[in-house]
Amino acid sequence: MQANIKRLAEHIGSLGGVIRPHVKTHKSVEIAREMKAAGHTKGITVSTLQEAEYFFAAGFNDILYAVGIAPNKLSHVRDLIERGCDLSIVLDNLDMARVVTDFANAENVRLKVLIEIDTDNHRAGVKPDSDQLIAIGQCLHEASNIILQGVMTHAGESYSCFTHESQLAMARQERDLSVLAATRLREAGFPSPVVSVGSTPTAFAIDDLSGITEVRAGVYVFFDLVMAGLGVCDVEEIAAAVMTSVIGYQRDKNWVITDAGWMAMSRDRGTADQPIDQGYGLVTDLAGRPLNDFIVADANQEHGIVSPRDNSTTINYDDFPMGSLLRVLPNHACSTAAQYTDYIIVDGEAIIDRWHSTIGW
Amino acid sequence: MQANIKRLAEHIGSLGGVIRPHVKTHKSVEIAREMKAAGHTKGITVSTLQEAEYFFAAGFNDILYAVGIAPNKLSHVRDLIERGCDLSIVLDNLDMARVVTDFANAENVRLKVLIEIDTDNHRAGVKPDSDQLIAIGQCLHEASNIILQGVMTHAGESYSCFTHESQLAMARQERDLSVLAATRLREAGFPSPVVSVGSTPTAFAIDDLSGITEVRAGVYVFFDLVMAGLGVCDVEEIAAAVMTSVIGYQRDKNWVITDAGWMAMSRDRGTADQPIDQGYGLVTDLAGRPLNDFIVADANQEHGIVSPRDNSTTINYDDFPMGSLLRVLPNHACSTAAQYTDYIIVDGEAIIDRWHSTIGW
Repeated sequence: MQANIKRLAEHIGSLGGVIRPHVKTHKSVEIAREMKAAGHTKGITVSTLQEAEYFFAAGFNDILYAVGIAPNKLSHVRDLIERGCDLSIVLDNLDMARVVTDFANAENVRLKVLIEIDTDNHRAGVKPDSDQLIAIGQCLHEASNIILQGVMTHAGESYSCFTHESQLAMARQERDLSVLAATRLREAGFPSPVVSVGSTPTAFAIDDLSGITEVRAGVYVFFDLVMAGLGVCDVEEIAAAVMTSVIGYQRDKNWVITDAGWMAMSRDRGTADQPIDQGYGLVTDLAGRPLNDFIVADANQEHGIVSPRDNSTTINYDDFPMGSLLRVLPNHACSTAAQYTDYIIVDGEAIIDRWHSTIGW
Repeated sequence: MQANIKRLAEHIGSLGGVIRPHVKTHKSVEIAREMKAAGHTKGITVSTLQEAEYFFAAGFNDILYAVGIAPNKLSHVRDLIERGCDLSIVLDNLDMARVVTDFANAENVRLKVLIEIDTDNHRAGVKPDSDQLIAIGQCLHEASNIILQGVMTHAGESYSCFTHESQLAMARQERDLSVLAATRLREAGFPSPVVSVGSTPTAFAIDDLSGITEVRAGVYVFFDLVMAGLGVCDVEEIAAAVMTSVIGYQRDKNWVITDAGWMAMSRDRGTADQPIDQGYGLVTDLAGRPLNDFIVADANQEHGIVSPRDNSTTINYDDFPMGSLLRVLPNHACSTAAQYTDYIIVDGEAIIDRWHSTIGW
């Protein structure tokens, strides 16, 4: 984990940029502190107001809540701000801009707002070349209790980019279109001091951050099988795993049964659409060495079914003694980590600490 | 929810049987009490020792931990028993039977054990007609600190039975093969006072419980889209939903963006293999009336993408005002409910209570 954190810090640092780490992946104060200690960071990004509360209570003050705001969360936002949290919120349409400006006026609270830009046709956000962008900017800029911070985007489409070249192209597109949006806002007379981009694949791929003020990324702290499938990391760099026990065999089906099912791994099957389908996770030994091609091929709520990928070999059951422990690398670290409220921290095979994490909304 | 609980209680009661409700679906003490209050129940079933702790602390004493035991959980089991919990454990192989009998002797603790039977070729369990079954029975029966309770099975393959006839056939198979296993144990001179079966589809389908001492089922308390897809319930009977806000539109893609992504719904795509794929969930209005064919077609961690199934109609955005609330029915109630530690209890649209639930291991 520390090597992964260092790798991105050094890359973004070498480009003269800063990272606003997305803590949604780990939801752990201790890990956020590790990210901060590696340098080249500014504040944090969160995906829920529960995360904002949790990290604010631990001393993290500069927080971007990077999911489009909903009206029924504004009271919570105001409460956090009034307690001293330097919280920014996000929206991508004029209707919500009006809801937010009305709230700020009615409640007499100053809200920092970023406009979400759609740079990859993937999810949320206003198009950078649209009239709607300028209309939102004007609405926010003219409201006396709104501080228009600028623009943010997330090129989630980078999860479909399987080569460095395509990841670099997506990173440049993410950068160029968010800079375009900020430039258009400025030319219309509105401020855009912040131009915030990011996803783990584009953060590692980008080679020039001109015009970008911060890079958001989260999953790089652990990496996972989806990132390995994209070539963003090696399987050996994956820093989070689920520990499980062998509890049974079904020899006629070439299965080992474990006590880590989909509740333990999450239901995330993110590698199902990749060239190498890792099932519910890739099995390693206790030291983290991958057992070549043993995956959690299927899962029930609390049962995992370990078998060779494509059932290509016959299991030597002596390799999986009853009751023995295995590690399973996750498809998607964000979804697997969110099934837990504690991390067992290891250095090699030695347990050195236990760190808490938060969950929920 | 109360109607669902009543429906199974009346059915099993009419057959002269009792339910050992599986609380893994809801993990809530209050809901377990509702199940108990409906009658025709005996004890509870849990899927983790964390659940055993949680329900034992709330006064539930008779608990079956229905996942094959692992050696590193035996100390916890002993601890629960020594504090007065009437806990039974499960195993399906001779190696684990020896581990458990050695532990019981070494620690001088009396352990109640059930043998898991494979009645549907689906997951764990020893075959009912195998020599291994008798060998396990002998190992457990001869151990002085083991109370051999009998047999248990779970016909999870019933989730692939799409007609009442096939569900009934699977229920009879589950019953007959578990009775066969118990009979073989008894004929070999070993006791089998308990013959425990169950899954929600087979529990509703079964028409004769001769030889069966208890029926385990869990998801019936809420039902879900997978159960509706099997014809076990109607969509209107689904009693758990996720509340979400409309936070954006992507009109060019015919999308409504909400703040309930896969973290809120879980990653469970259980209907993907059914005739009607419900995406990440079926959208209803605030009163729970399904909006015909609007599903969460895709999801990010905290974003849901609502669109018409197969994009067959053009969204009238006036039906989805910005900031308005929707409910989403889950594919799989067990996985969705486990993303939360609280339930908002409603009667129609009125909020009448808030109940806590547990998570983790």
